[in-house]
Amino acid sequence: MGVVLGDNQYGKAQIRLMKVDRDAASHVLHDLNVSVTLAGDLAATHLDGDNAGVLPTDSQKNTVYAFAREHGVGEIEDFALRLARHFVDAQPTIHRARVHVEESPWQRVTLAGRPAPHSFTQTGAEGRTTTVTYDGRGEWVRSGITDLVLLSSTDSEFTGFLRDRYTTLAEADDRILCTSVNAQWRHGSTEVDWAKSFETARTAVVEAFADTYSRSLQQTLYAMGERLLEACEGVAEVRLSLPNRHHFLVDLSPFGLDNPGEVFHVDDRPYGLIEGTLLRDDATAAPEAW
Amino acid sequence: MGVVLGDNQYGKAQIRLMKVDRDAASHVLHDLNVSVTLAGDLAATHLDGDNAGVLPTDSQKNTVYAFAREHGVGEIEDFALRLARHFVDAQPTIHRARVHVEESPWQRVTLAGRPAPHSFTQTGAEGRTTTVTYDGRGEWVRSGITDLVLLSSTDSEFTGFLRDRYTTLAEADDRILCTSVNAQWRHGSTEVDWAKSFETARTAVVEAFADTYSRSLQQTLYAMGERLLEACEGVAEVRLSLPNRHHFLVDLSPFGLDNPGEVFHVDDRPYGLIEGTLLRDDATAAPEAW
Amino acid sequence: MGVVLGDNQYGKAQIRLMKVDRDAASHVLHDLNVSVTLAGDLAATHLDGDNAGVLPTDSQKNTVYAFAREHGVGEIEDFALRLARHFVDAQPTIHRARVHVEESPWQRVTLAGRPAPHSFTQTGAEGRTTTVTYDGRGEWVRSGITDLVLLSSTDSEFTGFLRDRYTTLAEADDRILCTSVNAQWRHGSTEVDWAKSFETARTAVVEAFADTYSRSLQQTLYAMGERLLEACEGVAEVRLSLPNRHHFLVDLSPFGLDNPGEVFHVDDRPYGLIEGTLLRDDATAAPEAW
Amino acid sequence: MGVVLGDNQYGKAQIRLMKVDRDAASHVLHDLNVSVTLAGDLAATHLDGDNAGVLPTDSQKNTVYAFAREHGVGEIEDFALRLARHFVDAQPTIHRARVHVEESPWQRVTLAGRPAPHSFTQTGAEGRTTTVTYDGRGEWVRSGITDLVLLSSTDSEFTGFLRDRYTTLAEADDRILCTSVNAQWRHGSTEVDWAKSFETARTAVVEAFADTYSRSLQQTLYAMGERLLEACEGVAEVRLSLPNRHHFLVDLSPFGLDNPGEVFHVDDRPYGLIEGTLLRDDATAAPEAW
Repeated sequence: MGVVLGDNQYGKAQIRLMKVDRDAASHVLHDLNVSVTLAGDLAATHLDGDNAGVLPTDSQKNTVYAFAREHGVGEIEDFALRLARHFVDAQPTIHRARVHVEESPWQRVTLAGRPAPHSFTQTGAEGRTTTVTYDGRGEWVRSGITDLVLLSSTDSEFTGFLRDRYTTLAEADDRILCTSVNAQWRHGSTEVDWAKSFETARTAVVEAFADTYSRSLQQTLYAMGERLLEACEGVAEVRLSLPNRHHFLVDLSPFGLDNPGEVFHVDDRPYGLIEGTLLRDDATAAPEAW
Repeated sequence: MGVVLGDNQYGKAQIRLMKVDRDAASHVLHDLNVSVTLAGDLAATHLDGDNAGVLPTDSQKNTVYAFAREHGVGEIEDFALRLARHFVDAQPTIHRARVHVEESPWQRVTLAGRPAPHSFTQTGAEGRTTTVTYDGRGEWVRSGITDLVLLSSTDSEFTGFLRDRYTTLAEADDRILCTSVNAQWRHGSTEVDWAKSFETARTAVVEAFADTYSRSLQQTLYAMGERLLEACEGVAEVRLSLPNRHHFLVDLSPFGLDNPGEVFHVDDRPYGLIEGTLLRDDATAAPEAW
Repeated sequence: MGVVLGDNQYGKAQIRLMKVDRDAASHVLHDLNVSVTLAGDLAATHLDGDNAGVLPTDSQKNTVYAFAREHGVGEIEDFALRLARHFVDAQPTIHRARVHVEESPWQRVTLAGRPAPHSFTQTGAEGRTTTVTYDGRGEWVRSGITDLVLLSSTDSEFTGFLRDRYTTLAEADDRILCTSVNAQWRHGSTEVDWAKSFETARTAVVEAFADTYSRSLQQTLYAMGERLLEACEGVAEVRLSLPNRHHFLVDLSPFGLDNPGEVFHVDDRPYGLIEGTLLRDDATAAPEAW
Repeated sequence: MGVVLGDNQYGKAQIRLMKVDRDAASHVLHDLNVSVTLAGDLAATHLDGDNAGVLPTDSQKNTVYAFAREHGVGEIEDFALRLARHFVDAQPTIHRARVHVEESPWQRVTLAGRPAPHSFTQTGAEGRTTTVTYDGRGEWVRSGITDLVLLSSTDSEFTGFLRDRYTTLAEADDRILCTSVNAQWRHGSTEVDWAKSFETARTAVVEAFADTYSRSLQQTLYAMGERLLEACEGVAEVRLSLPNRHHFLVDLSPFGLDNPGEVFHVDDRPYGLIEGTLLRDDATAAPEAW
């Protein structure tokens, strides 16, 4: 028998960087979690422990910090593009770089009714993400949102579903719908106003959730993706992953009480998980981006 | 040798309740995590497995859900008081009840420029808490805030500290100060406008953080507590626990770069932990409350 | 512009099942975390909210529990195969089922020097996994191990690596190597003694780690994969993901102390991440399995 | 109104230390998570930001690492005592030190049937703990165990309990009992064979769990504490905190199946929480220890 080395990659994960822009009196924060993944001519280190072609993950980390100082951070898509291009262009052994960035939002504190110049509070788990892939010839940019928790307290039903021997679920004509949106969308080019595009995409997702009467979380997923593609012209493809965070109506009848959609038990596990992809019909597929 | 049964208690922890107020067209959410702890005449179950005096934790859970329907939730302090009084007053074997509630905030979604009637997004890890203790004679109410993350990008130093053989820390005359506030304050009575008191307390903490030039996190802690006691007349005592979330300036000199307070590495562990209590000087101590 | 629905799937994630085999005086535990994912003719629910072809995720959960009673659990690969086949074969709208199972190990407690018949203790985060995919024509079985934490306190170096402008890492000729193995291997058939195969695979991974002098974690990864393929004849392919859990030698020289590989700071983030695939050279690829 | 500074303390939390004993060919690991808390004459830093009496938490961390090299680690109680004494005795402003240590277990890997000299695998979340308090006059040592998960698949019932209006729980005459033991016990002196004492205590807890027919988790708690006090002569007091990890029998009757104690749903939240203290009847209380 022979053994063949197949796909492989390596990198530094979860580099935690806080960049403070101090040029103006009013400071600006960039709170990032950066992961770098490199692939290329790496057979020697696997087969013989010969590291001559291996850029240490420690150097990757240093590069992230140094680039933040040399070039600033700005929009995370630009920051990731700069890093990805560098790793491939600078090292002949590195043929593909993928840089994933998650940015955590901070909000300026109000002090005596006015925005404080350098005091901030962290707002939530929701993050803005990007994943950039560069292979020396092409580059692909995904933007995304993670852990955007949305809840609708009505206008959601789940009825008319398939029933089999193991089905006990009652039809629900008015339920809570709650999900934590993880969405990623692929841009058709790198000439994008990233900040504006992100705001447009986020608004599309939130508004689609809020004004869709939902017959299934799949329908809501499709509405989110369609709205995003309509709103963001340059986006070719969107992938959504929506956990269904179940809220179960508590049976209060043993206590002589009704429960007209008011009191719910929130369960952690198990949860539904709905995943789907929507594509612009004139877009070309780009498996390299994912 | 003989063995004595000392202090003991039991209860149901982390009852996850979502209560939707649907009376108006615009729904209101109460997203609670409730823990109940009971103490009393419980020797028999420990010594003989005789459960005649034990109210099941399952019944405690049911009570939480039923009370949400019967009485609504309203302010969490009121909800916890109602529950604590019930457990002690209804059962002769239960001599003390402690009810802890953490409320997670939700924010109404904006749809086409207007607040959506029944769509919400979750905003952050920050929670509002209460812990109510009732023993049949007295009752004690603590309110609190948890995981309020605050960061100041300047106006913080740490200098002039004690140095010993193991001290290598450099004096820092301009550092990032970041903490996650966990504060609890004890009210002198139960006749309080809980919502207003909480907002006043939270604002006091945030503003004390934002406009204190900090020479140590201890100084900031004291400023927070003092401001809270000044702003909330009915509060007798406040306890704060402040992790010091270290942001380390990255040494970029190997790359020929300076770093004037701009690029930081954020570390998870270890972290500093500063804890302190402030009391109104005319307040009486209340160990039963804690 | 038109929008196209691309790949999509749905299911119930993290169904927590404890199955007790009570046939013999000495009980046996099967502690499982099961996730089901279904794909098929699901356009209608996305486009119109028509759920006629949707088997509720609640029914999937029920099926898992019912099958545990009807057929027992046994080896997790068999349990997952049984479930995957059922979902596709029973429902015309479901064209592909993927069932992922993670089993948590329990160890029988020793009581007065003898194995207790029905008392157990949980041993660690390490889990045994399987992922089975079935599309009505073919079926693919992966087995795996997750969170197997291994540490070598010597016989590991990292030298001779590529250096660029951002490299400050010193050569290390004697370091701690620590990783948490996540491995999955694809079987060439379903006629396998799963329990024996798993034990053989696990031993191969652990022993490869223990007796490889490591010049890079990549080299260790390759040794693990190669050893596994050699030991398990029926395995066609193995994929490994190895975080590099950094242990940094603490500089004790400011305190007049040396540190000959004895005192280490353990860091959480960032961490290295090494990923690779090894294939038997006569194996055919099976992208459907992943 | 005046404000008074009450109890306060500070320190460094979660210092992650790996100490390798390399004196023999067969290495030994000490994997510790150390937290230091200091109290004393600290009003000045709170009130004025005067840090002259503040030993930086960074120095505390350095001391932990340096002591590991200077004195070795050995048993965690000795390591914590050494540190606690140092902080108080070396600094006039520090009047009380508390050092908490959690040790994570590693197991030597077997290689070709023999124990490997320097390769290890991590076994579980269970940890051994100590908390030492020293105030310049007295010192108090607690030892403990954390996250010891135990399950009994029979010989547990919960019947005869109090019923009120909100009770729906059925009597259970054969249920799964599962808990994650967190226990701490206070020693009467510091002249103890810590390793032997810990093994004796752990065995007492596990065996009490395994051979107690349980009518309530409280009864099991008492049995654990009593057995520990009987087995460890020098222990004055033991405190136990036992979450009740509910395993619910799944109702399979809708599928025409019985379920004679075989198939359980494991729930995360809510959970019961049983807490209790047992004291040797001739022991003196020591609130300073807790």
